[in-house]
Amino acid sequence: MSKRSVSTATVLFSPGNGGATPGDVTMLGGKGANLCAMAGLDAPVPPGLVLPAGLCAAVLSNGGHLNESTRTELQKGLAQLEEHVGRKFGAERDPLLLALRSSPPDSIPGLMDTVLNLGLTEAGAAALGKQAGDERVGWDAYRRLVQNFSVQVLGVPRTGFDDLLHEKLEAEGAEGDDELSADALQGLAQVFRDHSRQVTGTDWSDEPLGQLERAVEAGFAAWNGPITRNYRYEQGLERLPGTALVLQAMAQGTWQAQSGAGRYSTRVPGTGEAKPHGQFLTTALCTDLTAGLRMTDPVTKLEKELPEVYQELQGWAERLERHFRDAQEIYFVVERGKLALLHNRPAPRTARASLHIALELEEAGICDDKRALCLVQPQVIDEFLHPVLDKTNAPAPLAKGLPASPGSAVGQVVFFAEHAVELANQGVSTILIRHETSPEDIDGLKVSVGIVTAHGGLTSHAAVVARGMGKCCVVGAGDLSINYLVNEMNVGDQVIKRLDWVSIDGTTGEIYKGQLPQVQPTLEGGMVKVLDWADKYRKLGVYANADTPTDAQHAVENGAGGIGLCRTEHMFFEIDRIPQFRKMILAKDEVGRSAALSELLPLQRRDFMEIFRVMDGRPVTIRLLDPPLNEFLPKGIRSQTRMARTMGISVEAIQARVEALGENNPMMGHRGCRLAVTYPEIYNMQVRAIVEAACIVKKEGVVVHPEIMVPLVSTARELSVLRGEIEVLVKGVMAEMNEELPIRIGTMIETPRAAVVSRAIALHADFYSFGTNDLTQMSYAFSRDDAGVFLPLYLERHILDEDPFVALDQQGTGRLVEIAVKEGREVNPELKLGICGEHGGEPTSVKFFHRVGLDYVSCSPFRVPVARLAAGQAAVEERRN
Amino acid sequence: MSKRSVSTATVLFSPGNGGATPGDVTMLGGKGANLCAMAGLDAPVPPGLVLPAGLCAAVLSNGGHLNESTRTELQKGLAQLEEHVGRKFGAERDPLLLALRSSPPDSIPGLMDTVLNLGLTEAGAAALGKQAGDERVGWDAYRRLVQNFSVQVLGVPRTGFDDLLHEKLEAEGAEGDDELSADALQGLAQVFRDHSRQVTGTDWSDEPLGQLERAVEAGFAAWNGPITRNYRYEQGLERLPGTALVLQAMAQGTWQAQSGAGRYSTRVPGTGEAKPHGQFLTTALCTDLTAGLRMTDPVTKLEKELPEVYQELQGWAERLERHFRDAQEIYFVVERGKLALLHNRPAPRTARASLHIALELEEAGICDDKRALCLVQPQVIDEFLHPVLDKTNAPAPLAKGLPASPGSAVGQVVFFAEHAVELANQGVSTILIRHETSPEDIDGLKVSVGIVTAHGGLTSHAAVVARGMGKCCVVGAGDLSINYLVNEMNVGDQVIKRLDWVSIDGTTGEIYKGQLPQVQPTLEGGMVKVLDWADKYRKLGVYANADTPTDAQHAVENGAGGIGLCRTEHMFFEIDRIPQFRKMILAKDEVGRSAALSELLPLQRRDFMEIFRVMDGRPVTIRLLDPPLNEFLPKGIRSQTRMARTMGISVEAIQARVEALGENNPMMGHRGCRLAVTYPEIYNMQVRAIVEAACIVKKEGVVVHPEIMVPLVSTARELSVLRGEIEVLVKGVMAEMNEELPIRIGTMIETPRAAVVSRAIALHADFYSFGTNDLTQMSYAFSRDDAGVFLPLYLERHILDEDPFVALDQQGTGRLVEIAVKEGREVNPELKLGICGEHGGEPTSVKFFHRVGLDYVSCSPFRVPVARLAAGQAAVEERRN
Repeated sequence: MSKRSVSTATVLFSPGNGGATPGDVTMLGGKGANLCAMAGLDAPVPPGLVLPAGLCAAVLSNGGHLNESTRTELQKGLAQLEEHVGRKFGAERDPLLLALRSSPPDSIPGLMDTVLNLGLTEAGAAALGKQAGDERVGWDAYRRLVQNFSVQVLGVPRTGFDDLLHEKLEAEGAEGDDELSADALQGLAQVFRDHSRQVTGTDWSDEPLGQLERAVEAGFAAWNGPITRNYRYEQGLERLPGTALVLQAMAQGTWQAQSGAGRYSTRVPGTGEAKPHGQFLTTALCTDLTAGLRMTDPVTKLEKELPEVYQELQGWAERLERHFRDAQEIYFVVERGKLALLHNRPAPRTARASLHIALELEEAGICDDKRALCLVQPQVIDEFLHPVLDKTNAPAPLAKGLPASPGSAVGQVVFFAEHAVELANQGVSTILIRHETSPEDIDGLKVSVGIVTAHGGLTSHAAVVARGMGKCCVVGAGDLSINYLVNEMNVGDQVIKRLDWVSIDGTTGEIYKGQLPQVQPTLEGGMVKVLDWADKYRKLGVYANADTPTDAQHAVENGAGGIGLCRTEHMFFEIDRIPQFRKMILAKDEVGRSAALSELLPLQRRDFMEIFRVMDGRPVTIRLLDPPLNEFLPKGIRSQTRMARTMGISVEAIQARVEALGENNPMMGHRGCRLAVTYPEIYNMQVRAIVEAACIVKKEGVVVHPEIMVPLVSTARELSVLRGEIEVLVKGVMAEMNEELPIRIGTMIETPRAAVVSRAIALHADFYSFGTNDLTQMSYAFSRDDAGVFLPLYLERHILDEDPFVALDQQGTGRLVEIAVKEGREVNPELKLGICGEHGGEPTSVKFFHRVGLDYVSCSPFRVPVARLAAGQAAVEERRN
Repeated sequence: MSKRSVSTATVLFSPGNGGATPGDVTMLGGKGANLCAMAGLDAPVPPGLVLPAGLCAAVLSNGGHLNESTRTELQKGLAQLEEHVGRKFGAERDPLLLALRSSPPDSIPGLMDTVLNLGLTEAGAAALGKQAGDERVGWDAYRRLVQNFSVQVLGVPRTGFDDLLHEKLEAEGAEGDDELSADALQGLAQVFRDHSRQVTGTDWSDEPLGQLERAVEAGFAAWNGPITRNYRYEQGLERLPGTALVLQAMAQGTWQAQSGAGRYSTRVPGTGEAKPHGQFLTTALCTDLTAGLRMTDPVTKLEKELPEVYQELQGWAERLERHFRDAQEIYFVVERGKLALLHNRPAPRTARASLHIALELEEAGICDDKRALCLVQPQVIDEFLHPVLDKTNAPAPLAKGLPASPGSAVGQVVFFAEHAVELANQGVSTILIRHETSPEDIDGLKVSVGIVTAHGGLTSHAAVVARGMGKCCVVGAGDLSINYLVNEMNVGDQVIKRLDWVSIDGTTGEIYKGQLPQVQPTLEGGMVKVLDWADKYRKLGVYANADTPTDAQHAVENGAGGIGLCRTEHMFFEIDRIPQFRKMILAKDEVGRSAALSELLPLQRRDFMEIFRVMDGRPVTIRLLDPPLNEFLPKGIRSQTRMARTMGISVEAIQARVEALGENNPMMGHRGCRLAVTYPEIYNMQVRAIVEAACIVKKEGVVVHPEIMVPLVSTARELSVLRGEIEVLVKGVMAEMNEELPIRIGTMIETPRAAVVSRAIALHADFYSFGTNDLTQMSYAFSRDDAGVFLPLYLERHILDEDPFVALDQQGTGRLVEIAVKEGREVNPELKLGICGEHGGEPTSVKFFHRVGLDYVSCSPFRVPVARLAAGQAAVEERRN
């Protein structure tokens, strides 16, 4: 940060007189720093002052009012600016008019909007127009001052002025404000002043300096306004000193000739193509561009109409793109043929355009690969990974749900997992549609090309499983009314029967009747290049969550450095294992359980052997059994009857066991390592399978790094007791197999208590893997299976900005992660730290995990490239700061 | 802390040469500090050295080994001690023999046990006995050295030596070790040496100084041993520097004449009566008292046998009681008629005895009221609050469950809440026995004299409700096999039918067949005196959780300063409200819901008016609706049918709604303030009822301080949005009622996230009330309804030391409370802070809440005296430190 950092002194900028370093953003704000930089390049920016965040802090600590010292700073700056421009602020003839804008260090809501034409008086307004023979300009400027000042500083509601303007336009028979005569505008200013007086109870009086001071105070005060203050505390931004303000000489684009306002972008937002793009509005200021009172023209029309201005604009745009090393959007005003650049910012762009721009800028030498890497929006990868629907001739969607897993699918409807399996065997592409899915449906989920549920949120069972499989999925499509009995569903007045064709879009949540064509994009060369950059710079390992050899293969192909989560329970749902596992659950005692488990041992050992072979040389983190046993028993009478027949026992016996294992809150019940405390034989079998498998493949020459993970620990003693038992067994099995290999033993950190007692737990762990799904559930007390009822409303009402099951809640859940990382490493500096929740494949979360110092993230194999990209960006962004 | 605090220098103590201040405990340990104090009083303690915790830290930072500087400290101290005693350590003739004991600053498990007779060699052993004509003593001392040193320092398992001793006794035909001849003891020493060599692989050799150094290193090393280290990290004691050791000259009580070892207590443990109490064993050392090899005699036998010794002992005991201002237990040795005091500690006592002792010490002027207050064990209050069973002629208990709510009850068995209500109307005392209870059973719970459940833990519905009502309750009595259909239960081979008599003990969990007599204790004068002391010193407010005017009345009678939790949902379960509330739940839209709610408004308003009148002048914190709506609908077909009949709708409609509201994890589902976001009309009705009630009673002259509490907040915006709506309504209703009164609006902190984002939430809260029940559930991911399956095993296997739903888990859940308190006050120094979970009435938790700076605790009215006592102790203990 420069020496300006703690100062309350204003900073003058003016063409040829400026310059800024990135650190200045905290004090000058984004807008202020950019303006100083543009001025330093000698760009035609109207001169102005930045009132720094330090001044804001000083004013706020004085109860929001200027005092002698801060007033002196403001006046000193103003005098400097007056001298520079050669006009006097508040003068009646040719006064210096100023626009005041907020310039926060980051995108922060609730700050003050623009106040235009500060310094203008009624007399000045009359003079301003006369001076150049267009009285409209003076009165238009004056009515804008009255309007903006009343709204932004005096707190008069905006809508009153909008209504009055519309009345005036109607009365005058004008289409837009540019058609209002000088008289009409003068009248409008009067009407505005009256309105302001009526609402505030105080007469409007022209006091340029007083108005400037009050506007500055209001601009600073917004920093402590409810919206901004809430946002700062919620986002953990309490330490920022304040917002800067920019006070800039007005450029009047409201003349009728050769005047107007526009924005110019160096790239086309949708594609990233290097072509000018933007809007222009004649006889207008920049605030009119978005007001919607008049239609704008494409900015390219200036090429013909004001070729010199356009050429100058284009020249500066190119220079600024090179200087800021990114595509630019420039807000500008043309005042009687003279170009003024008001401010600039990175050009808006879609994800796909961001890739195009990044590659072009790097190839053109405008930026290096690090910078280019950071310009790519990670979402772009999704577009390359999944087939998309061609909606050119598509009908209106049948229904819309939540986009749970991206891509598209076209298939025939089934309502039961069993039907999906039957039909898939006959080569039919099925789309499984259910109220919601459960682990029993797993085979149906696997064979279907797409999944739709009527209930459930973005982290419902269907959504999580589908994302894990990289399979298109739409959930919570509440308009679907499914009738399982007759194998059909109603959507409004339409009926969809079993085997009807539907097409679904998991990126938008849309469901179409019929077969829409699909287009398969490929991971183009550019994307491969960007991922190479990411791998070159990233420090964070990227592992995958993979439960099967096939998943593991995908993980390796997508660049995963290991398996961060191998869920062993999914193995028990396989058709050849579930009977044994159920036998274990139904056994009366430990002997019966051990007998059933011993039948599972060779099967589970084979699973691990196959995965170890695929992952040759890479770590494989295996989580011991986690879900409650009840999940492995069928709930419906049909399935129970089938199970009874298969196992040769009574349905009543099954129902009694289901009942006995029933829990009020299974998420917080008898699961995870608690199962190991009550039924130690389960983990014993699993540990034996892991170690035997590792020893066998090692003899084959495979390099194997198993890591054994204990789930749902909440006390250090749970882990120390289980670790003791596991260590004894590991040693014993190795001795039996006459083999030695290093095996790490660690734990999931997925309860809030585990996070805050990390010091004690770290004594017994070789590694932590943060289970951020459960940690999020416990932090908020949000059951992800049930939150679908209120989460949508929470998002709609902006009580939440994002679904915390999608993007990690950094302030709450993330803070628990930070505590556990810091305190765990204090006790055990060798602790390997990773995360295996859904957040491991979400870009902003990945960047957070980099910042708090994890060693790796683990996500579904399909999200590995996204995580690699985000991890690369995080590393580069860190170095820049 | 004295200047000794950072020193590695040893501290000499010897009669007339000592003294210690309380701060020394950190460095000298409890035992060391007491010995210094006793020596300062010129008590006959064998001289010795304290090796301070500073020395421990220095040795541990050198890899656990003495180095030049620490060895020098030890030798310097030893030389001083030798000079003082006039004997040489390791000399062959009349050597200085030393006992080494751990002296930690607090009760910490896993440290080293005593090593006796350091400094003795084989030659010395022979000389020691010859010198005084009893060779037994020398060889006995030597075999003890070999035994203790091998076990404590060399790590040889203890059991081997025990077996060898028993073999020897058998071979010699001796009853106890005191009957072994000198030859036998010499032989035993040789056998011990051989055994030690066999296990360690190293010959035993007499090296007094080397052995001393190794014993000291082992004593210090235990500080980092697994048990102690785990304990320290789990308890947050990482900052303690280490353990002190005490090295004390041996007093040999093993002579055959006028020798022995004993412990002497100044008070009778069971009653607190001021009478000598304790044991004595002739020809023994103190470690033999608990070894169980021989039967001990009452210590009072010394009065006849060694009257001078006894008189001296009694005199010192009284002096020490005065000096330490507490009843004392003294460990002593008599060596040929000479008394030596080895160490002292507060005398053990029952809760009831603690009250007796405290009152007597204060009356006798031995201590002041502050000290006396701290000597009372808060559990004693339980004994005065509930009738107890007279078990003099009782049969064996029928079954045993968990003691869920103390006291006793005798009544006739019923298995349905409805039966309890019917019979209670006929004046029958009923004991309701169920698998588990639910809110539907509330009327049955209210009218029964006692409650028993076969399932559920200490925080199951039955347990929590019973404690809230101060009603005797036993839960989780797994041996009861209830058959609802035939209205009876089996326990083993016994059958208990409806209306059979049973007697239950909620303090022990026992269930008896038949009618046992009950005895009703009264809160005696002494207890009243102690509570007055507590109120005089305590800083923590004590409020009560009360939902009805009757509860509120109890609260005031028990000394509550306000209501910290008034649960509004319990009001809806009343027989005259539940139909309206159910109508609200079944309503199709907001209009229907509002109509049903408007019928509830006058009823709820009346509830509040009555409570406000009782609580005149005291704050009343009202929690808006918290449980999921599903809880208000009946689950059984019988109740559903009855409800359908009452409401004139179909059973299917009720079942459909029950189904729709069903959740996988209701504890983390659609409840608390989430209901207010989806159904704002519910809180609107409740807020209106509160404000109207407050205005009405204010007009009557009642002083009313309502506080409106929003439950289950996890984000700041939930509270800011709801607070905004509540404030508008409060203002509106006050204007309607033409009344003004201050109403605080605050929130429960019961999700881990709320605790860690306290900075943001505190912006919108006038008060926090920690809901430590839910906070505990979420921290551990323990559902209190389901944890009964594994919690007992967790306690049995010492994975948990205490049920975290009973005593607050200070390291985990408590840390979240600390974060929320600290950061909430930073942002909002006016924040009022309380706790209303079950922990508000548990003494150690109350002390924790005092330490972290809460303003009040709130607990069930029946626990208010316990909380007052604990709060008083916390305040006094804080001043002392």
